[in-house]
Amino acid sequence: MQLVQLPANLPAMEQHPPSDFARLRRKPQRGAYDRATIHAIIDAATLCYIGHIIDGRPVVIPTFHWRYEDRVYWHGSAASRMLRANAAGGEVCLTVTLLDAWVLARTSFNHSANYRSVLCYGRPSLVEDANEKLAAMKGFVERLFPGRWDRLRPPTAQEIKATSILSMPLTEASAKIRSGPPMDNDEDRSWPVWAGLLPVHLAGDPPIADADVVSGQEPPAMPA
Amino acid sequence: MQLVQLPANLPAMEQHPPSDFARLRRKPQRGAYDRATIHAIIDAATLCYIGHIIDGRPVVIPTFHWRYEDRVYWHGSAASRMLRANAAGGEVCLTVTLLDAWVLARTSFNHSANYRSVLCYGRPSLVEDANEKLAAMKGFVERLFPGRWDRLRPPTAQEIKATSILSMPLTEASAKIRSGPPMDNDEDRSWPVWAGLLPVHLAGDPPIADADVVSGQEPPAMPA
Repeated sequence: MQLVQLPANLPAMEQHPPSDFARLRRKPQRGAYDRATIHAIIDAATLCYIGHIIDGRPVVIPTFHWRYEDRVYWHGSAASRMLRANAAGGEVCLTVTLLDAWVLARTSFNHSANYRSVLCYGRPSLVEDANEKLAAMKGFVERLFPGRWDRLRPPTAQEIKATSILSMPLTEASAKIRSGPPMDNDEDRSWPVWAGLLPVHLAGDPPIADADVVSGQEPPAMPA
Repeated sequence: MQLVQLPANLPAMEQHPPSDFARLRRKPQRGAYDRATIHAIIDAATLCYIGHIIDGRPVVIPTFHWRYEDRVYWHGSAASRMLRANAAGGEVCLTVTLLDAWVLARTSFNHSANYRSVLCYGRPSLVEDANEKLAAMKGFVERLFPGRWDRLRPPTAQEIKATSILSMPLTEASAKIRSGPPMDNDEDRSWPVWAGLLPVHLAGDPPIADADVVSGQEPPAMPA
């Protein structure tokens, strides 16, 4: 995927030292702050949850995101409260979570989940330049459906104008991961109940073609 | 599922009139405020995202939730920043989203997703009473794995004490739903690209039994 005119000169550091705010307090052994881990989790997720402060109150909006280099992008309508809050320079927290398995233990207390999550904090900025916006829109489509952008009816100037794109550097971010079996106390392991993992994943169902699809056109794969 | 000692005297109203804050501004035709719709979406989701304001900054934490009557519950460690923020009477926004399908249109602009989401705002309160807390813990396990609670090693007083349970009334909530095919402009419908829905759902993979599981024990079904 080729994105043009996005800032590309990133520092060579491979590790973001966590800020005091981003550093995990609970179960710090599950934490990770290296760029490769954070990027991989962000890339594996399509849906994110963005927390804003609007009129002094927390508001969490689900939306889709994509990543280019060390920035995360999302889009919205210029008319939305979310965009207005962002345009005012407000800070956000963007959170993604991939649920990997239910973790069933012998006690309710030791039940858990295997997951990969990232929280990143920052102040998003609007992508103002029309060419940069177009590149970002292409990046969004191509991240979900590789090869689709060039097959679509190209966007009009009005459509580009009506789309707002935000981006935020991944400089203040943390990952949190749990994997592995349930952690029961030794004395509980012989309790007569099933224990282990129930893995889950997001699966695709058969595509449903829209009316009037031109014959011979095939659906793309579900986003991975 | 039987939960004891939780407040049960709810007003008979079937419709929460949306507060000005909770009322949808963007695409209001996708909004719903009736209790049945809001309950059904909350019940269909297991993972929620709770937005807090901590040190003046938005923080979005993923966690699991469950519902009893017109309240939503979640749990956490008494030592967490999230719990400390809640104990200080802070307001939260609890958001759930079920992704139902990718919506592929003939233009990037008209791509969308089918989803069901709920945002609810409020000030959570700690479940303080030990019996009420036990009932809520049972409600959580039974919501995920019906019949499992009575098969587990019962919780100790220490385990109950170490678990913090929060709840919040669903009085200031809104649902937002998109369903149906892509909405392309008439003049785009003959564009030669596949368009339609790619439905998705959370699917289970084969269970992975823990070491030492007592023979004859079978795994429960994945939470629905």
